[in-house]
Amino acid sequence: DFLNALEEVKPLFGVAEEELGKRLRGGIIPFSGFIEDILEEGRLFINQVRKPGSTPILSVALHGPPESGKTALAAKMAIDSEFPYIKLVSPEDMVGFSEMQKVQQLDKTFTDAYKSPLSIIVIDNIELLVDWVPIGPRFSNTVLVALKVLLRKEPPKDRRLLVFATTTERSVLQQLDLFNRFDAEIAVPNVNTQAELAHILRHSGAFSDRDQQRAIGEIQEITGSAEIGVGIKKVLTGIETAKQDQDMPGRFARVMSRAIAANRSL
Amino acid sequence: DFLNALEEVKPLFGVAEEELGKRLRGGIIPFSGFIEDILEEGRLFINQVRKPGSTPILSVALHGPPESGKTALAAKMAIDSEFPYIKLVSPEDMVGFSEMQKVQQLDKTFTDAYKSPLSIIVIDNIELLVDWVPIGPRFSNTVLVALKVLLRKEPPKDRRLLVFATTTERSVLQQLDLFNRFDAEIAVPNVNTQAELAHILRHSGAFSDRDQQRAIGEIQEITGSAEIGVGIKKVLTGIETAKQDQDMPGRFARVMSRAIAANRSL
Amino acid sequence: DFLNALEEVKPLFGVAEEELGKRLRGGIIPFSGFIEDILEEGRLFINQVRKPGSTPILSVALHGPPESGKTALAAKMAIDSEFPYIKLVSPEDMVGFSEMQKVQQLDKTFTDAYKSPLSIIVIDNIELLVDWVPIGPRFSNTVLVALKVLLRKEPPKDRRLLVFATTTERSVLQQLDLFNRFDAEIAVPNVNTQAELAHILRHSGAFSDRDQQRAIGEIQEITGSAEIGVGIKKVLTGIETAKQDQDMPGRFARVMSRAIAANRSL
Amino acid sequence: DFLNALEEVKPLFGVAEEELGKRLRGGIIPFSGFIEDILEEGRLFINQVRKPGSTPILSVALHGPPESGKTALAAKMAIDSEFPYIKLVSPEDMVGFSEMQKVQQLDKTFTDAYKSPLSIIVIDNIELLVDWVPIGPRFSNTVLVALKVLLRKEPPKDRRLLVFATTTERSVLQQLDLFNRFDAEIAVPNVNTQAELAHILRHSGAFSDRDQQRAIGEIQEITGSAEIGVGIKKVLTGIETAKQDQDMPGRFARVMSRAIAANRSL
Amino acid sequence: DFLNALEEVKPLFGVAEEELGKRLRGGIIPFSGFIEDILEEGRLFINQVRKPGSTPILSVALHGPPESGKTALAAKMAIDSEFPYIKLVSPEDMVGFSEMQKVQQLDKTFTDAYKSPLSIIVIDNIELLVDWVPIGPRFSNTVLVALKVLLRKEPPKDRRLLVFATTTERSVLQQLDLFNRFDAEIAVPNVNTQAELAHILRHSGAFSDRDQQRAIGEIQEITGSAEIGVGIKKVLTGIETAKQDQDMPGRFARVMSRAIAANRSL
Amino acid sequence: DFLNALEEVKPLFGVAEEELGKRLRGGIIPFSGFIEDILEEGRLFINQVRKPGSTPILSVALHGPPESGKTALAAKMAIDSEFPYIKLVSPEDMVGFSEMQKVQQLDKTFTDAYKSPLSIIVIDNIELLVDWVPIGPRFSNTVLVALKVLLRKEPPKDRRLLVFATTTERSVLQQLDLFNRFDAEIAVPNVNTQAELAHILRHSGAFSDRDQQRAIGEIQEITGSAEIGVGIKKVLTGIETAKQDQDMPGRFARVMSRAIAANRSL
Ligand SMILES: Nc1ncnc2c1ncn2[C@@H]1O[C@H](COP(=O)(O)OP(=O)(O)OP(=O)(O)O)[C@@H](O)[C@H]1O
Ligand SMILES: Nc1ncnc2c1ncn2[C@@H]1O[C@H](COP(=O)(O)OP(=O)(O)OP(=O)(O)O)[C@@H](O)[C@H]1O
Ligand SMILES: Nc1ncnc2c1ncn2[C@@H]1O[C@H](COP(=O)(O)OP(=O)(O)OP(=O)(O)O)[C@@H](O)[C@H]1O
Ligand SMILES: Nc1ncnc2c1ncn2[C@@H]1O[C@H](COP(=O)(O)OP(=O)(O)OP(=O)(O)O)[C@@H](O)[C@H]1O
Ligand SMILES: Nc1ncnc2c1ncn2[C@@H]1O[C@H](COP(=O)(O)OP(=O)(O)OP(=O)(O)O)[C@@H](O)[C@H]1O
Ligand SMILES: Nc1ncnc2c1ncn2[C@@H]1O[C@H](COP(=O)(O)OP(=O)(O)OP(=O)(O)O)[C@@H](O)[C@H]1O
Ligand SMILES: [Mg+2]
Ligand SMILES: [Mg+2]
Ligand SMILES: [Mg+2]
Ligand SMILES: [Mg+2]
Ligand SMILES: [Mg+2]
Ligand SMILES: [Mg+2]
Repeated sequence: DFLNALEEVKPLFGVAEEELGKRLRGGIIPFSGFIEDILEEGRLFINQVRKPGSTPILSVALHGPPESGKTALAAKMAIDSEFPYIKLVSPEDMVGFSEMQKVQQLDKTFTDAYKSPLSIIVIDNIELLVDWVPIGPRFSNTVLVALKVLLRKEPPKDRRLLVFATTTERSVLQQLDLFNRFDAEIAVPNVNTQAELAHILRHSGAFSDRDQQRAIGEIQEITGSAEIGVGIKKVLTGIETAKQDQDMPGRFARVMSRAIAANRSL
Repeated sequence: DFLNALEEVKPLFGVAEEELGKRLRGGIIPFSGFIEDILEEGRLFINQVRKPGSTPILSVALHGPPESGKTALAAKMAIDSEFPYIKLVSPEDMVGFSEMQKVQQLDKTFTDAYKSPLSIIVIDNIELLVDWVPIGPRFSNTVLVALKVLLRKEPPKDRRLLVFATTTERSVLQQLDLFNRFDAEIAVPNVNTQAELAHILRHSGAFSDRDQQRAIGEIQEITGSAEIGVGIKKVLTGIETAKQDQDMPGRFARVMSRAIAANRSL
Repeated sequence: DFLNALEEVKPLFGVAEEELGKRLRGGIIPFSGFIEDILEEGRLFINQVRKPGSTPILSVALHGPPESGKTALAAKMAIDSEFPYIKLVSPEDMVGFSEMQKVQQLDKTFTDAYKSPLSIIVIDNIELLVDWVPIGPRFSNTVLVALKVLLRKEPPKDRRLLVFATTTERSVLQQLDLFNRFDAEIAVPNVNTQAELAHILRHSGAFSDRDQQRAIGEIQEITGSAEIGVGIKKVLTGIETAKQDQDMPGRFARVMSRAIAANRSL
Repeated sequence: DFLNALEEVKPLFGVAEEELGKRLRGGIIPFSGFIEDILEEGRLFINQVRKPGSTPILSVALHGPPESGKTALAAKMAIDSEFPYIKLVSPEDMVGFSEMQKVQQLDKTFTDAYKSPLSIIVIDNIELLVDWVPIGPRFSNTVLVALKVLLRKEPPKDRRLLVFATTTERSVLQQLDLFNRFDAEIAVPNVNTQAELAHILRHSGAFSDRDQQRAIGEIQEITGSAEIGVGIKKVLTGIETAKQDQDMPGRFARVMSRAIAANRSL
Repeated sequence: DFLNALEEVKPLFGVAEEELGKRLRGGIIPFSGFIEDILEEGRLFINQVRKPGSTPILSVALHGPPESGKTALAAKMAIDSEFPYIKLVSPEDMVGFSEMQKVQQLDKTFTDAYKSPLSIIVIDNIELLVDWVPIGPRFSNTVLVALKVLLRKEPPKDRRLLVFATTTERSVLQQLDLFNRFDAEIAVPNVNTQAELAHILRHSGAFSDRDQQRAIGEIQEITGSAEIGVGIKKVLTGIETAKQDQDMPGRFARVMSRAIAANRSL
Repeated sequence: DFLNALEEVKPLFGVAEEELGKRLRGGIIPFSGFIEDILEEGRLFINQVRKPGSTPILSVALHGPPESGKTALAAKMAIDSEFPYIKLVSPEDMVGFSEMQKVQQLDKTFTDAYKSPLSIIVIDNIELLVDWVPIGPRFSNTVLVALKVLLRKEPPKDRRLLVFATTTERSVLQQLDLFNRFDAEIAVPNVNTQAELAHILRHSGAFSDRDQQRAIGEIQEITGSAEIGVGIKKVLTGIETAKQDQDMPGRFARVMSRAIAANRSL
């Protein structure tokens, strides 16, 4: 029965792993101690669900600033669980879907998951999934209510399900009464200190020690502060842009400083 | 005629009982005297409806904080009534339904109930059934008006119906002029005192007396208060999470304290 | 010609009488002098319409608090008129109807009525018929405008029509410019004094004189006032609930007091 | 060519005349000098359109309080014109029409009118035709814009059209930018003085001189003023209601006083 | 190629010319020097577009008070251009069109115009085309965005297009970000001075010099001012109304004074 | 494989190049040093995407005042890249599209781009694509969310994509949370100084040195300032209008001054 279930969901698994793998292309750089803490927290929840007779459905919200690595971390946790059914639900795969089609897709994903004894569903960018726009504000009530209901719906007997969801809009989800439907939350941080930034520059292999020091020095000069506060993904893209410039450290400093300023003005 | 009716609704009954039974998986732990009072109150309304020639339709709203056990208690009352027709109406079974489909489902459930001499309908999470979202606010007018009408609609001659509805949003239902359509209300409480919490920990069998005392002590330390104020279901999930941690009582105290803090900030 | 018309609408009549009769199941208890005044007022309007060559269409709004007996009184008047066409239009029979379907049903009811020389249409809960919800506020414009038009539309030659409508929301109908489309209004009162309440308790046959006095005394104690202000239907349901309790007068006092308090807080 | 056109629209004419005649059932009682002035004003506009080579389309708004006789006066003018094409457009004939169907009906009526050398269209209750409701406010944009356009659209060569429209909501139409699309306006007054009211009571034949004086005296007593301010139609209905009462003048005084009070509180 | 294009659009041209001609039925009375200035300005834009290799699309907004002659002036300019493709787009021809049908009609008109080397499109009453209503406010977003796009869309190579649009709502179009899509604007004035009014009265041939002076004198008396401020079309209609009255100058003065007052109160 | 891809997208390329070429009809006049800086910045981003293993998707927003040359500059960069797949997405090609059709068109354009190893998509007038109108405000949520998602969606392995988008509404896009989805931004300036204006007039070949000086002198006189602040396209159209006037420099000064005033009043 367990084996049958495994058999049944195998093809789904393969596809999903590739999808999730794509989200991990930049790897997980351990630029701070928090990164390992987050992954450890994930393992704890995975074990809670794995244990027979325990919590049949558990949901965890990964929230943090834009491009801070939420999706990559959720993907990492899901893949490492080695659960027989893993599925990514992403707005990217629903461009042009009507509200009803989105709900049907969600419902199908959960129904499929109930067929496996142990499942993980990663719901990416949950605020985009509900079409959140701050002006109005506007959002899809239909998708929102469906999510609320599915996050609390108990799977059939002997089926257990773990849901990871990512979002940049924790307080929006709170206002929508969606956040409190999650059983737990994990905060994903920006690259915040010069030491963390240095770690990443070193890891990139593109910056000599001198270049790295110059870049960080110039950032401090331009922004007038040692605080960084930029998402890991933005840092990695900034490195690539800088590589095109003859003055690599200078360009990197300018790009980073603009990102730092933009974040502060929010 | 009575027997015929019984015959007719039998299959429905079987299905519903399983559905309701699922809601009772965690049992009813008598952690406080209020729990028995609530069940007694339920029996009184059931007897009122059972008496021939008495009130042909009676509706009772069970309201209380999230995860406080509203659905489990309504399920318990319904099952214990041994009425020939019992049915659960839940948003979980209506994911992706249009407003009209929800209304049709509701209407059908009531029409089916009218075929049995004695019926109970449990309407779960009535605020989700009407798609309530506090931003806007938004809700389904169509479902709302249908509920208002059905709660007052008299069954045919010699048919009697009891409706239990659960909700976390008593004041919302009042604003929507829905709450005053109910004939009576029952308040379902949180786990509020340390004694109540201790009762549940003991009942779980996972905590030694020492662990239990340490956990409760730490909660008081972290939150700076002896008040708990957390739903029974959250307590039970917290116990399962704690079991994964090497420091079970410490983890339990942290998880509970976060839940206590979250509830206070509302 | 008159006879033909009678023939034609006969079947409709039969159905409607049963529907209206159902609304009278609790009878009309003359708990106050106002009740007879209301019925007398109804007879006056019926005679005005009955007189050939007089007002071809006349509309009367019965308004009052929830469960005060509006529908029962309108049903009583309609049945006592012995007009050949009598029809009840109720939201209860339109659950799940679209706005357009409601309008078509209304239009058909009026068109049918025009076929009889003398007709009465009872429109029940007119604020629910227009899907009124105070939040927003929301309502069905389509149904509202149809009602406005039909209430003033003149029947064909030699056809006369009387419309009774019931509502708890007189001031809402005024804001909607619907109330002033009625030619007259009748206010239906709550059970307001202890004497009126005593009348009803006596009539129920369930309370001994002692029980009745104890119940009323306790209500005064709990609410700190001799004013009642509760709908007759709530009183009758309260009596049935109390009958289940061993302490019948005490339970009745508690149920009534809660109802009194709820009404005051409005 | 003129004769052909006459032929063509003849059937339409017959129907419309009956419809308009129905609106005149209560006759035109010349209770005040203003009534003749209004009819004279109507004749002037009819002559302006009748004159070849003059204004090809002319539109006149008749506005005034509810039940003041707007429709009856417009019907009178239209019938007296003896134009070959006369048509009444009324919300009463459009119950249950969608916005688009209303617009199509309007468009068709104008297109038909263009086939006759001389036409009159009476648009009744223009604020209901656009589904005006003060809460929101709400109205049909589609019908509104269609009316705006049609009121200014020039008929084909050698075709001339006069439009009368009635409304209780002059200021609403101004806010909607619809009122200024009319070329002229005529104000229709209430029954305002005791002398006017006496004229109507005398005309009814139901009141002796004594009864009439008593009724008017009592009205002054109850309302504390000699001003009346009630629509002619309400007065006529009030007379019929009073006729059912044994105390005819007293009942009439009470009914009128209530109407006077209701109008003042607006 | 040029000749082919001419051939192709010929039938369209004929139709449009008739339509535009209808708008000129009252002729262009040169009641003020501004009228010739406006026509001269129009010729300048026509020449700019006519010149090969110059501006491929040019758009001009004619704005001014109601009935001031905007449409007539735009029609005059278009007809005098003798461009091979001329087309009037008017809300009058779109009564009952859905938003999408309006957009398709607009799109088709532009696409047809692109087939001719030189084209003029007159878009009449652009604020009605977008269903503008000040309450709400409401308007058709779909039509608005289509207009914005089409006004800037470059025709194919060797095709040049001039767009005239008329509107009474310059500031509305500014708020809608539509006005700044036009390359130029022309203001169309009211009949503003007594001299201008006298010019028109003389031109009508209906007023003797004495009548004319009396009429203007009375207007000044009634309004207490020498300012007129009324659209030419309203003046012409007023003359026709006055002709029906035995006291022609008196009636004209009253009609004009009311129009003057109405405009001032805006 | 690379060659196959080239083959496959070739036809698309041809079409797009023509479309983009049309946007460049007025050439790129280097009226200021900023113009070259902008083009240089564009080349840097193109190189970043061209480099294998680097950033798989990069998006750049070109923002600036109306008619400042945003589309022309984006077209120039795209054409100069010589990437095998280049595509312009413009509201001009979507007149009359429903929201869903727009999203499908966008989705298809991205899906097509993923087939080429290197692609550029130019999204023109992104605020019109989302149907932005400041009153309300209104916009298409569906298109907006699709754009947000597509701008972050990673292409398949070994496919790289650069997106240029143009807009006049930077702050609107910020409010819509759309602007921060871009990786970089480029500001496009107006013609701001007299020297820049002189450069353009000289380049036009229509103005003698004297005419040019007179025109610029008169502008300063009329506007009372040496600042210009008008888009390059408005300047070029103004030159063409002026050419029709006998007093070319005078007309140019008047047209420019009006444009300067209009921009200031915003
Ligand atoms: N420690 C890390 N944590 C997370 N991501 C990392 C880390 N180190 C490197 N990365 C890389 O950084 C990128 C993070 O991007 P990711 O899309 O996960 O961010 P995000 O927070 O989900 O962004 P968005 O707000 O757009 O959803 C990935 O490519 C990932 O491989
Ligand atoms: N005394 C009790 N009362 C209610 N439930 C109890 C009690 N003791 C144990 N339980 C268990 O606690 C859980 C309560 O969850 P339930 O879904 O009924 O809560 P709820 O208030 O309906 O939550 P929600 O707000 O999500 O609807 C059930 O699993 C139930 O078996
Ligand atoms: N004097 C009375 N007047 C009206 N109803 C009475 C009276 N005496 C007894 N009744 C009974 O009380 C009940 C009144 O209920 P009814 O549904 O008519 O109230 P309602 O005001 O229409 O309620 P709702 O506000 O829900 O529409 C009926 O069962 C009726 O038979
Ligand atoms: N002088 C009069 N003017 C108008 N109507 C009169 C007059 N005398 C008698 N009547 C009668 O009074 C009634 C006026 O009703 P009518 O429907 O025309 O009023 P209304 O103003 O159109 O009402 P509503 O505001 O409902 O549209 C008609 O029956 C008409 O025959
Ligand atoms: N100098 C003039 N300018 C414009 N129209 C004139 C002039 N002299 C006479 N007319 C006549 O006046 C009328 C002007 O009406 P027209 O419909 O053009 O006004 P409009 O401003 O477009 O009105 P609206 O605001 O309703 O669109 C036409 O019949 C036209 O022939
Ligand atoms: N330096 C320049 N930069 C940009 N465009 C220039 C320049 N010199 C000349 N041009 C010409 O000016 C015109 C600029 O128009 P374009 O449509 O690109 O402006 P835009 O900012 O996109 O306008 P809109 O705000 O309407 O989208 C083009 O015809 C272009 O060929
Ligand atoms: Mg992400
Ligand atoms: Mg529940
Ligand atoms: Mg009722
Ligand atoms: Mg009327
Ligand atoms: Mg016009
Ligand atoms: Mg552009």
